[in-house]
Amino acid sequence: MSSIGILGGTGPAGRGVAIRLASAGYHVVLGSRDGDRAAQVAETLSPRGDGTIAGGSNEKAASCDIVVVATPWDSAVATVKEFKSLLANKIVISMVNALAKEGRELVPLYPPRGSMAAQIAFALPESQVVGAFHHLPANQMENLDSGLEADVVIFGDNDAARTQVAELVSAMPGLTAIVAGSMSLASAVEAFTAVCISINIRHKAHSYVKLAGLAH
Amino acid sequence: MSSIGILGGTGPAGRGVAIRLASAGYHVVLGSRDGDRAAQVAETLSPRGDGTIAGGSNEKAASCDIVVVATPWDSAVATVKEFKSLLANKIVISMVNALAKEGRELVPLYPPRGSMAAQIAFALPESQVVGAFHHLPANQMENLDSGLEADVVIFGDNDAARTQVAELVSAMPGLTAIVAGSMSLASAVEAFTAVCISINIRHKAHSYVKLAGLAH
Repeated sequence: MSSIGILGGTGPAGRGVAIRLASAGYHVVLGSRDGDRAAQVAETLSPRGDGTIAGGSNEKAASCDIVVVATPWDSAVATVKEFKSLLANKIVISMVNALAKEGRELVPLYPPRGSMAAQIAFALPESQVVGAFHHLPANQMENLDSGLEADVVIFGDNDAARTQVAELVSAMPGLTAIVAGSMSLASAVEAFTAVCISINIRHKAHSYVKLAGLAH
Repeated sequence: MSSIGILGGTGPAGRGVAIRLASAGYHVVLGSRDGDRAAQVAETLSPRGDGTIAGGSNEKAASCDIVVVATPWDSAVATVKEFKSLLANKIVISMVNALAKEGRELVPLYPPRGSMAAQIAFALPESQVVGAFHHLPANQMENLDSGLEADVVIFGDNDAARTQVAELVSAMPGLTAIVAGSMSLASAVEAFTAVCISINIRHKAHSYVKLAGLAH
């Protein structure tokens, strides 16, 4: 089974993806600027099945076969640039959303290239950047008994990479992959996260996106 | 029951909203630049219940109590400007998405103020502009037997207007209103329509957005 590294993986978003990747059989490296802290966090996570979660440095995470970017949006580009050569010729999955709190709601921010995935792709010209995991509720992701059945919208310009990520996502418990299209859709997918979270704040809910009427 | 006018209502999107508004008991004026054409289209629509659909000019539609903007995106601002005084002190619902076809997919376009709803609000400073009806599949909207059960994301800066639109939407068969928040979310809601349609083109489906895990 492939190894999957998660840059900035110790936050709620990274932990949720880690536990469901490991429960699909993958060997996950939960990366952090502070490798000791990542090791401590990894020990608190109990995936099911044959996969594993080990904590380590972001460098160790970047050395895996596939790498997920789960850092805060404003450190994502700096982090991937630091490991540019390790990430070359690999699939890099961006789950980063640029969001800001504005009163009771979260609002989307648009980086110069329209989306964080496009910023990351620009910083990593030798990697295949694919977007996924944007709209997922972190705490339900982390709890394998939450009953989550979410659709994951996937986009990117490399068809083979997109397909490989879709297979990986659909192997994770509770998730169904839906390939939407190219990087031209990145801003729309990322920004919609602000809508999901704002709805959850306003309605005190943990909702997530399902696309009804799609044969899976 | 209030009267509701639909500017540019003879296209698939306008027809679908018209038939479900009329089926909720509203008196709908399907507006068009060509009033005779609108009258012909209105005759083809068979709502259920006590509501009615009459065709007419866009001016007649703009004279209703509440007005929906369903024109193509690139004529929306010109159309509402033409009826600015008729639309003053009214709720104006924007269902407009700025989208472009790019190969096999639809991609979002971002107008200068970020969204079509914001463009319309700027053109109509004396109206209460609310966004709704963006992600709905037009042909399933028009067919009352399609089994549609879609969530409608609603946004706007005027709380009372937003609440009134939410009540109106939830009265329509097959639709549930979800208030997301302010106009700061407009670009994200509108742009996500491109993702929905691109998914439908790619997967030959008629999917629509549901927010799972939300108590309705």
